[in-house]
Amino acid sequence: MENKYDLIIIGGGPAGLTAGLYAGRARLKTLILEKLSCGGQILLTETVENYPGFPGGISSSDLMGNIEEQVMKLGVKILEEEVKQLEKAAVSWRIKTAQAQYDAKAVIVAVGSVPKTLGVEGEKLLMGKGVSYCATCDGPLYRNKTVAVVGGGDTAAEEALFLTRFAAKIFLVHRRSSLRATEILAQRLKENTKVSPVWNSVVKEISGQNKVEAIVIKDANTGKEEKLFCDGVFIYVGRSPDTGFLANLVNLDEHGHIITDTQMRTSQAGIFAAGDCRKKILRQVITACSDGAVAVHCAQQYLSKTQ
Amino acid sequence: MENKYDLIIIGGGPAGLTAGLYAGRARLKTLILEKLSCGGQILLTETVENYPGFPGGISSSDLMGNIEEQVMKLGVKILEEEVKQLEKAAVSWRIKTAQAQYDAKAVIVAVGSVPKTLGVEGEKLLMGKGVSYCATCDGPLYRNKTVAVVGGGDTAAEEALFLTRFAAKIFLVHRRSSLRATEILAQRLKENTKVSPVWNSVVKEISGQNKVEAIVIKDANTGKEEKLFCDGVFIYVGRSPDTGFLANLVNLDEHGHIITDTQMRTSQAGIFAAGDCRKKILRQVITACSDGAVAVHCAQQYLSKTQ
Repeated sequence: MENKYDLIIIGGGPAGLTAGLYAGRARLKTLILEKLSCGGQILLTETVENYPGFPGGISSSDLMGNIEEQVMKLGVKILEEEVKQLEKAAVSWRIKTAQAQYDAKAVIVAVGSVPKTLGVEGEKLLMGKGVSYCATCDGPLYRNKTVAVVGGGDTAAEEALFLTRFAAKIFLVHRRSSLRATEILAQRLKENTKVSPVWNSVVKEISGQNKVEAIVIKDANTGKEEKLFCDGVFIYVGRSPDTGFLANLVNLDEHGHIITDTQMRTSQAGIFAAGDCRKKILRQVITACSDGAVAVHCAQQYLSKTQ
Repeated sequence: MENKYDLIIIGGGPAGLTAGLYAGRARLKTLILEKLSCGGQILLTETVENYPGFPGGISSSDLMGNIEEQVMKLGVKILEEEVKQLEKAAVSWRIKTAQAQYDAKAVIVAVGSVPKTLGVEGEKLLMGKGVSYCATCDGPLYRNKTVAVVGGGDTAAEEALFLTRFAAKIFLVHRRSSLRATEILAQRLKENTKVSPVWNSVVKEISGQNKVEAIVIKDANTGKEEKLFCDGVFIYVGRSPDTGFLANLVNLDEHGHIITDTQMRTSQAGIFAAGDCRKKILRQVITACSDGAVAVHCAQQYLSKTQ
């Protein structure tokens, strides 16, 4: 009995915690399973300036700590366990972690999505110190500075265009000789005098003392290495959501993001998804929180119709 | 020149202000037009307990004041003018208020949506003091209390079911002799011993000193009046968004809510909608804020492709 819940939320980032908040208020018997400690990817960012409600910005750890406290006050249980398996049980869903197993009438998957890294020297060390994966979040910090954007797809192109509003100069580093991005975006980048394309090149190293100072690039044809001085590096080489355990259960897109409708329903009745792990247009704390609230609302509707 | 903007946001509630926040950060030349003062419908609620980030809750005026301050710090202009007309101009959209006219390359409509009132004595006076239009928001205040739900559609049925998690007794007051709600919801209400249907009845008055104490109902067949003692009244007789000025411009649903896709695009390129005025499943501060962020992100994409 103690391992049976109305709702289990997998993941304790902004989406999972907000789902916990709404589920707790709805008096659903709720469990949040988070493999590390709560907070999510946003903890890699020091200060959150674009979450509505904090005019001076707020540290990401304070913001997420606040939300976690808000959830715990409602009596929602949070366990630090990694979900290994999710499968259909007799009248519910069964979740297995390394430690135990749990049954839930409905499940909200909110496992987030990690930007792919280049895996080069200096990248990890300078993350949040000039290395960024989100121009919408960090662009305003680079007013009149020089930045490098790495990647050649639509996201890289859009974010590079966005950065032209702030930065004085933008190196666009791509391993091919032209962009994969939509032609109109590629055209606009070409026309923008702030943007210098660096074709056929891969990043070998990100260097700097305490903050990004330069990147070392290597020409794929000639093998020649070169140092480009810059204040920030924005990396757009894809994302990988941690949705492997769902592969044969719900529909995923080609990158592994969960496909839902506007009610956060996946292709399996009773399984909902919220936040960055969804296929969606904008990944921000505020959009993740909203997903969490909607997922609970629709999970409640589902429960009231099936229980 | 001074009346030309990249983006004009109509409405200064949670959706409009968050759009202002994201637009300001994106350095779009932005104007927010709000007919009253900023804040929106949420100002009718004293304390907001379900907005993530404030473990002790926050007064609605503080929350909205914070967001407005966050927007103004970015230099976004906010004017108190009511929009009378929105029409296509040569290369942009023209907005007319009683005072002036403005041109914008893109427009975000975030005018909100007002729950329809019963228009009976005591309703306005006791709003926020027992009279509520949102069980998701105010339900937790009625633990072990008696409430009345007014209405017979799906929303009334769902919210009445939701209230069974808190209240000890629920009068379901409907002017007809059966619910319009989906059969399965109607069935669950019927089976729930906490719910007492009050058929063929209309509310004539809501009474109480400083807080709701009772409602007076009138039987539509016999004309007989009766007093039902209760601590709260939840009213679900529809919503009316203030979208009349858009009627011949963008697609609206039968209630006047704006139909958008997940990118907040309306049926007119360049016009986006965000928040409660959209046709959507859940109307909360957090979902409105999220809409505002997404609308700006997609407006930016639109501008970068069309400018």
